[in-house]
Amino acid sequence: MAKIIAINAGSSSLKFQLLQMPEEVVLTKGLVERIGLNDSVFTIEVDGEKVKEIKDIQDHSEAVSMLLDKLVKHNIISSLEEIEGIGHRVVHGGEKFNDSVLITDEILHEIEEISYLAPLHNPANVVGIKAFKNVLPNVPAVAVFDTAFHQSMPEKSFLYSLPYEYYEEYGIRKYGFHGTSHKYVSERAAELLGRPVEQLRLLSCHLGNGASIAAIEGGKSIDTSMGFTPLAGVTMGTRSGNIDPSLIPYIMQKTGQSAEEVINVLNNKSGMLGVSGFSSDLRDIESEAEKGNERAELALEVFASRIHKYIGSYAARMAGIDAIIFTAGIGENSTAVRERVLRGLEFMGVYWDPALNQVRGKEAFISYPHSPVKVIVIPTNEEVMIARDTMRYAM
Amino acid sequence: MAKIIAINAGSSSLKFQLLQMPEEVVLTKGLVERIGLNDSVFTIEVDGEKVKEIKDIQDHSEAVSMLLDKLVKHNIISSLEEIEGIGHRVVHGGEKFNDSVLITDEILHEIEEISYLAPLHNPANVVGIKAFKNVLPNVPAVAVFDTAFHQSMPEKSFLYSLPYEYYEEYGIRKYGFHGTSHKYVSERAAELLGRPVEQLRLLSCHLGNGASIAAIEGGKSIDTSMGFTPLAGVTMGTRSGNIDPSLIPYIMQKTGQSAEEVINVLNNKSGMLGVSGFSSDLRDIESEAEKGNERAELALEVFASRIHKYIGSYAARMAGIDAIIFTAGIGENSTAVRERVLRGLEFMGVYWDPALNQVRGKEAFISYPHSPVKVIVIPTNEEVMIARDTMRYAM
Repeated sequence: MAKIIAINAGSSSLKFQLLQMPEEVVLTKGLVERIGLNDSVFTIEVDGEKVKEIKDIQDHSEAVSMLLDKLVKHNIISSLEEIEGIGHRVVHGGEKFNDSVLITDEILHEIEEISYLAPLHNPANVVGIKAFKNVLPNVPAVAVFDTAFHQSMPEKSFLYSLPYEYYEEYGIRKYGFHGTSHKYVSERAAELLGRPVEQLRLLSCHLGNGASIAAIEGGKSIDTSMGFTPLAGVTMGTRSGNIDPSLIPYIMQKTGQSAEEVINVLNNKSGMLGVSGFSSDLRDIESEAEKGNERAELALEVFASRIHKYIGSYAARMAGIDAIIFTAGIGENSTAVRERVLRGLEFMGVYWDPALNQVRGKEAFISYPHSPVKVIVIPTNEEVMIARDTMRYAM
Repeated sequence: MAKIIAINAGSSSLKFQLLQMPEEVVLTKGLVERIGLNDSVFTIEVDGEKVKEIKDIQDHSEAVSMLLDKLVKHNIISSLEEIEGIGHRVVHGGEKFNDSVLITDEILHEIEEISYLAPLHNPANVVGIKAFKNVLPNVPAVAVFDTAFHQSMPEKSFLYSLPYEYYEEYGIRKYGFHGTSHKYVSERAAELLGRPVEQLRLLSCHLGNGASIAAIEGGKSIDTSMGFTPLAGVTMGTRSGNIDPSLIPYIMQKTGQSAEEVINVLNNKSGMLGVSGFSSDLRDIESEAEKGNERAELALEVFASRIHKYIGSYAARMAGIDAIIFTAGIGENSTAVRERVLRGLEFMGVYWDPALNQVRGKEAFISYPHSPVKVIVIPTNEEVMIARDTMRYAM
């Protein structure tokens, strides 16, 4: 019996979850926001209630100290020695890391070296790692990479059709993201299907504010919709997904923006927000679409049709599939999106039940029992995966 | 019985074909190159032989005059009055033109106005139109647009997930290209299948130096792989097809190139040339791959797998398909590419015969007779489509 902290550190935030392993029971979870700014916000769940405290928190080390104090103070643990491992989400593992890894000084250095591939994320993850190392120097820490699961992609999937030296010299290739989630739901799907993951061809749809699709054959990712960065692939809340690359200089010329500014628009003002014109939140869009708002309906159609087409694409990639998985905020909860995504896939053996598709936020088959391809809703759980990997590498 | 000239004008070239309609017999064809430069080259087919002449040709009007002289001189026609129509290929018709059109002064002005969408192509097409108008002012001329066939795409297909005002203000949307070819082969496929095109779901693969895939439902294009420009979609000879848009500023930063220069690399130094490192010509790549060149093999795999995935994608888009069509240089001739593209599509009803797939350059079914989805090789013929449309609008 071990207690493991799963950490997701942002540049001014720290998301945490304390799990009891191997039972995978969540003892508490919470979030520190506005680190380094005035009026930082510390939120922790105590006996199912959210307890909030507002005070200035100077840096991540201070946030970590406060977190550990609270754990003891609220009797969630009786002493810090109960914490046997810390698992850190790290966005980018480059080509170096195809699995989670125990963090040593050398590994930390390597994670820092890869930061050029994820300049907004990896440095923040490193700050989180260092903060825990300051406060709990003797507790083993493990890095769990968002990209690692996709390192099994073959070259024909990950290589762009660009001059080959761009790959060799600048690391330009498809990395893919949401790997921890895709891995979790694919393993869980195998359990629910009662078949070894090695025998399955799974199509995993992680649909949240960010969205990606993965083709998982024999338990290994062989293709995925996100690319060099998480901008590529399907339409998302505020991200464009794929567009004609020629549009970048064209938009630059028409609007007077720099290339970076255009990419910023593609990341933050596009996707369902751009199409609908009023929100990136699917719930708003669904409710407006129901009231007859045509642009909301269009945003929904664009979003769903891009996912629908990826399903066909990756089914072809794997020469057919055994199951489609829906996960993350939208995938777990939106009956309307799942319906639009699944409509018209009978030709490839997908038969789903509109009644079963009413499910929200829990594990369920939504395909008919006779459907050759199963459709399963599986709530994702990246923290459990992080805790499992931390157990595996730290114990 | 009418004689029609089909014209494809480039900035320094003029490709022509003289057809007898409605029999669709090619009376002659040829090409003028290096117009406006020294040592222009005029080539025309006479009794099946190529006759070449090198002399300075100042402009497109002079090229047209020379062409008409040669037609009479070589007894291909007895007088210019036999020419009853001229059909001009025009690359971009914007949202204005969803069909071919008889060219009036107003139409010519509108084609010029759309030039901002195809700055390399439309101005050259306009020069060709004006040259014929100078020399044969009384012969009706028809514009046949590469984009027109795709104007039937619904908004959910043609709209990018960008701020909606980019569509309204700058015309940013998917237009699609190769429309004349996709239309020709889809109509021909319906004839070969003995079914009305209105009842068919066809997947057309135009695979040449440029390559695009179209989803054609009931005779109408409802989706296609090229986008705002012909750069988007699948890997091509020298074009990258889709990439993560974030790569543009990244490549700019790494290489010191401007956005336009990067797009130039994506158009001219990428695709199979970029991956193989030595050629954009599929025949070179196939022959090197056979000798064991790994990068050639990789280029082949990347090219074929992108097309393979589009087939799955567009099959999902149409809820299944009746036939796959291969056309253009590679589609008509490459047994190896077709094999790699078709491998693993049995799950959606595609059963093809390796023996039949040996066919090159002629109409043939390559699917087994029992295959629910037919696979057909159809040599494209854009000139015949141009002549047909010229007959339709000029007579």
